[in-house]
This record gives sequence, structure tokens and C-alpha cells, in this order.
Amino acid sequence: LGPVAVFGASNFPLAFSVAGGDTAAALAAGCPVVVKGHSAHPGTGEIVAQAIDAAIKATGVHPGVFSLVQGGKRDIGTRLVQHPLIRAVGFTGSLGGGRALFDLCAQRDEPIPFFGELGSVNPMFILPRAAAARGVEIGAGWATSLTMGAGQFCTNPGIAVIIAGPDADAFQSAAEAGLSSVDDQTMLTDGIAAAYRDGVSRVAAGTGVSKVMGTGCDGRVSAPYLFTVSGDDWLADHKLQEEVFGPLGIIVRVKDIEQMQQIARAIEGQLTCTLHLDEDDKPAAQALLPLLERKAGRLLANSFPTGVEVCDSMVHGGPYPASTNFGATSVGTLSIRRFLRPVCYQDIPSDLLPEKL
Amino acid sequence: LGPVAVFGASNFPLAFSVAGGDTAAALAAGCPVVVKGHSAHPGTGEIVAQAIDAAIKATGVHPGVFSLVQGGKRDIGTRLVQHPLIRAVGFTGSLGGGRALFDLCAQRDEPIPFFGELGSVNPMFILPRAAAARGVEIGAGWATSLTMGAGQFCTNPGIAVIIAGPDADAFQSAAEAGLSSVDDQTMLTDGIAAAYRDGVSRVAAGTGVSKVMGTGCDGRVSAPYLFTVSGDDWLADHKLQEEVFGPLGIIVRVKDIEQMQQIARAIEGQLTCTLHLDEDDKPAAQALLPLLERKAGRLLANSFPTGVEVCDSMVHGGPYPASTNFGATSVGTLSIRRFLRPVCYQDIPSDLLPEKL
Repeated sequence: LGPVAVFGASNFPLAFSVAGGDTAAALAAGCPVVVKGHSAHPGTGEIVAQAIDAAIKATGVHPGVFSLVQGGKRDIGTRLVQHPLIRAVGFTGSLGGGRALFDLCAQRDEPIPFFGELGSVNPMFILPRAAAARGVEIGAGWATSLTMGAGQFCTNPGIAVIIAGPDADAFQSAAEAGLSSVDDQTMLTDGIAAAYRDGVSRVAAGTGVSKVMGTGCDGRVSAPYLFTVSGDDWLADHKLQEEVFGPLGIIVRVKDIEQMQQIARAIEGQLTCTLHLDEDDKPAAQALLPLLERKAGRLLANSFPTGVEVCDSMVHGGPYPASTNFGATSVGTLSIRRFLRPVCYQDIPSDLLPEKL
Repeated sequence: LGPVAVFGASNFPLAFSVAGGDTAAALAAGCPVVVKGHSAHPGTGEIVAQAIDAAIKATGVHPGVFSLVQGGKRDIGTRLVQHPLIRAVGFTGSLGGGRALFDLCAQRDEPIPFFGELGSVNPMFILPRAAAARGVEIGAGWATSLTMGAGQFCTNPGIAVIIAGPDADAFQSAAEAGLSSVDDQTMLTDGIAAAYRDGVSRVAAGTGVSKVMGTGCDGRVSAPYLFTVSGDDWLADHKLQEEVFGPLGIIVRVKDIEQMQQIARAIEGQLTCTLHLDEDDKPAAQALLPLLERKAGRLLANSFPTGVEVCDSMVHGGPYPASTNFGATSVGTLSIRRFLRPVCYQDIPSDLLPEKL
């Protein structure tokens, strides 16, 4: 395609930043890369860039294949995506920042694709038999997944949907116990910590939302929060499905399987959706799956979505606002496709074709 | 994905309209289709829609999989691409109309992909040995390709680049003779005929442009036009590379192979680029190909781009403004990809997976 601009993630200074997945995919596709270093880790970015420069020198690759730009407020990113030589953009970050850059890319004289991964709340649906048989275990597992890395994962499961009743109570108690045993964690940046506090306040202020636990946050230190809300109240308040980046969980207590399906219909695009199910939950799962397939890039059963594997079958993308480009993934081997363009050769003499053909 | 909106082409009432390639690709991907019928052929559109309805009844498919809307000015198309249930758009038409709809799609609360095929001038590069050996033959072939269907093809080769000199003169004479032998042709609509007349005037008014032939157009009847211009003048006037939809050819007489490469660097995104070359032209072709690969969806040697085959290797797309989505094709089996989204199933019990897995 030509040069690709990469905006790395704040939460992955190595795996998804200067030399991360987007950079690897673009270079593998034969596109030079210009990385906008994330302001959360300029030093790490610089060290990684020096390592890349050393590799370029050692291998004799043209030095123009890689550049790092750092600093600035929004102006640097804005100018980068508007530069006429930039042909595509890979971005990992917030919905607000991503949408602003997406709009700039679409408004160019020559529009270019913006592959933005903007996060999601990754709902888990706990079906009745699984809740009865393993509610406590699932609740404890959720607490671990929700607080991994202080909840600073795109695939953090922020919402658990379960039918109200004693099984939901047991699940909630287990989650609360799990979350209570987590030590205070330090968030990656002041900005993330401040946004987390705002998110906690927003959720706490929702109609019908009860706080189960949460002891406050100070400076960069975050404590986990757990809230509960009825299915009716959740459905009535769109803001309760907005991502809170950090260790915050909401238990949505629905009336019945029907209302669980209503939730599945109401959710926006997600990176992941998870089902917890037992053998006898299969009819309920069969009704839910066609709804969830429409909403997510990755569907899981009886596990937790935090963490991904870089493999052929991975999809780390999903309908908007999880990502801006539903056919694309930023993790896994399919990620190279974002930066490739098909060309058809008709009657070209074979000695003029690209070597690989 | 969900419902797809299809805007068919004015110039292909059957192959690329109500039941054309976009509709077939979307239905094959499992997406219901809403076609905006083209105002150039409402009756044909209606008859085709009735045939589809009959097929739906005969096969017991849900009638919601297909709808045709007709009439209106721009308002119907605008509302269609803004409808929250529409998930993607396939469009074949003008750069102006396509860009307007693209912008609406990108500005939605939930942006959706717009797969627009907006046409191009499909330049041909005639290398020196081929010009010397077969200039007359290529000129005659060009005249045939340029006037096929009164030039109303997206892949119509509107520009021929050749090194100035006696071989270019011979090529030009042959093209002129070929074009002169074409009878008057009737264009598909009054609008296309009027736009063609405007295009003729625009090219004729270009600095350094000489008219070789062209006897005027009246009402819907179009006559072929042939112009010639130097490489310097063409490079100085960006408007000379804008598409004129109809049987109009421009011969760009360049100084040398270097200037031919300059032209290749200067052209915008194209559906096709064509090389005419002989054995001894290969070094020149090797220098041109890497430039042209960046600019087109389909590269041809020693043939003419008008007409496409629906096959696995076809690419009917290219960098903007040839199309709005460089990774996509509207013709060929790859066209289904536009309307598919990858989903990753992790640990889902095998009896819950989609049947095809």
C-alpha cells in the first residue's frame, strides 16, 4: 500500500506499541511504518525504536521502513493521518480518540482506511445450569480475570449477565470475595486512573445501580468495584454499557432467559462475548449464539476473554464500536490483510510477474 | 453482517444492477439486500425484481431477503445509507455521487463500510518496440475498445501514453481511422450524454490539447473524440486525468521512457493499467510495473481492459478514486469478502458451532 501510521496502545508498551502487532503486520505486508509513540511510555518507545534501528542496520534494510515520532498533543496524530503519503492507519485506544482520527481519515481528499481497535465491555452470559452448578467457581474466576493488570485489558469482561435468584447471589458473593482479596493496584498512567474514577462515578450514579463493593481510588492506585443492576434498569440506561477501563464489574440480574436475549440484542459491537454453560444449557445457548455472533469478533465458552493468542484463528476485532473495521483483526495472522491490496495480473509475461508468483 | 444496500450501475441494467454482482455477493454472504433502483432503467429494474420475487416464492426463502426501492432524487439514497439497520453499501457510479454517499456512511453514529466503484481513465502505456512493431494494430484495437458500448464502461481505456515521433503518428492515424469508421451511437441516458458533452469541452479547453477528430454530439447521440497532448502539458493539468464517461481518447505524447514513468507516478488510482510491450521492451516494462502496481487493481499486457470475466482471479477495484475500498473487488469471487466478517470460536462445544464448521 505504502506507508502505514501506527498508534500503539497505552496498556501494551511492548506487545502493542512501537514494535507491536500493528507494526509487525504492516512490515510483513511490505509497508513502511511510522509509529506515533504513546505518551504513556516515551522512554520504552525510544528504546524499542533504537532496537529496531539496530536491526535495520544489521540487516541492511532501507532505513526508511521505520520511523518513530513522539510528543505533541493531538496535533501530531492529526497531521500524521492527514499526510498524503500515509495509506492506512492502525490504532489501539479509546473510542473518543479513535473516532476523531477515523473521521479525519474519512474526510481526506483521498480517504484511507482506519483500523481502530476501540475496546468493549465484553459481556459474559451465565446460563442457569452453569450458574447452579458452578456459580461460585465462575464468580471467583471472573474476579481474577477482571483484575488482571488492574483491569487494563481491551478484553476485560466488565459485565456479567445472570438470572436473578440464589444462584446469582452465590455468584456475586464469590466475585465479591475474589475482588476483596486483590491488593491495591497501580494503574499505568494518571490519565487512565482519572478516567477510571470517572467511570466508577458514572456507573454508581445509574438508576437502580447498587454498589456491592469498592473502597475508593487515590491517585494512581485503583481498587476493584462491583455493582449490580436489574436487567430492566440496564436496558433502560445506555450509559451502563459504555466501557470503564479498569477493574470494574457490573452484574446484570435479568428476570429470565428471554431478558438475557434482550440484553444480547441490545449490546453494541464487542471484541468478545462469553457464554458459561453446562450440558443442559444448550437450548438456551442455541438461542443466544445467533444473537451474539452478530455482536462480537470472538465468542468463548466456559472461559474468560482476557488475553489473546497470536494464532491463525484469532480475531481481535468486532462490530463498531469495538473496532472501526468489522472485517479486520489487529491480532493473529489475519492482521496482515489490513495492509494488503489484491492486484490481478492479466496476460503479463511471466518473467515480469513478481517473483513470488 | 445484516442488510446490505446496493446501488446498481446505470450502464449495466442486468450484470450490475438489481440482480447484479453486488446483490449476488451480498446474498451469497447471507445478507439481505435492499436495492436502490437506478433511475436510468426503472422498468428493467422492476421486471428483474419480479423475477427475484418469483424465485423467492418458488424456493420458500424468507421474502425479507430482497427489496427494491425506486424513485426519489438523492433523498432516497441518503436515507437508505443512513438507516441504522443497513450494515454495508455496494455502489457503482460516479465519483461525485459515490463520495457523497461514502461521507454519509462514515459520518453515521455507527460508521459502515461503503464499497464504491467510481471508475477511472484506465491508461495504456505503449512501449517503444511495441509501438514500432504494432502501433497501427494497437491503434485500431484501441479504437474498438474505446467505442464499445459508446464508451460507457468503467474500464474504458481513455488515455494512451506513447513516445512522440513517427510511431506515435502511425498509432494516432490508425486510432483516428478506427474511430472514424464507428457509426453514431446512442448513449444510455440524457444525463450520460450531457456529461459526455461537458467532458469533451473540458478536455478540448485544456492547455496544449489538440483535437484530432470529433464531429460533435447531439441529444443522446455521441460521436467519438480523439485528442492529443504533450506529456509536459498533461502533467501540468490535473483535470486531463479526470474520467470522461464515453468514447473519448487522449493520446499523451511523452518525450521518453522517463516521462512515461513520470506519468505513471502522477496518475491517480485506477481500475486498470495496460502495458503494450514487445520482448525488447522488458527493461522499460520492469521499471514501469512497480509504479503501476501501486495504482491499479488490474494490470494487463497487450490487450484491452474493456470487459471483465467473473472468475477467482478478477479484481475490479483499485486505489481511490477508482474505488473507495482498496482491498475489495466488486467483480469476481473475492467480491463476497466485502460482506463477510470473521468470527473466532473459542472452546465453543462442537454441537453449538455453525453447521459448516
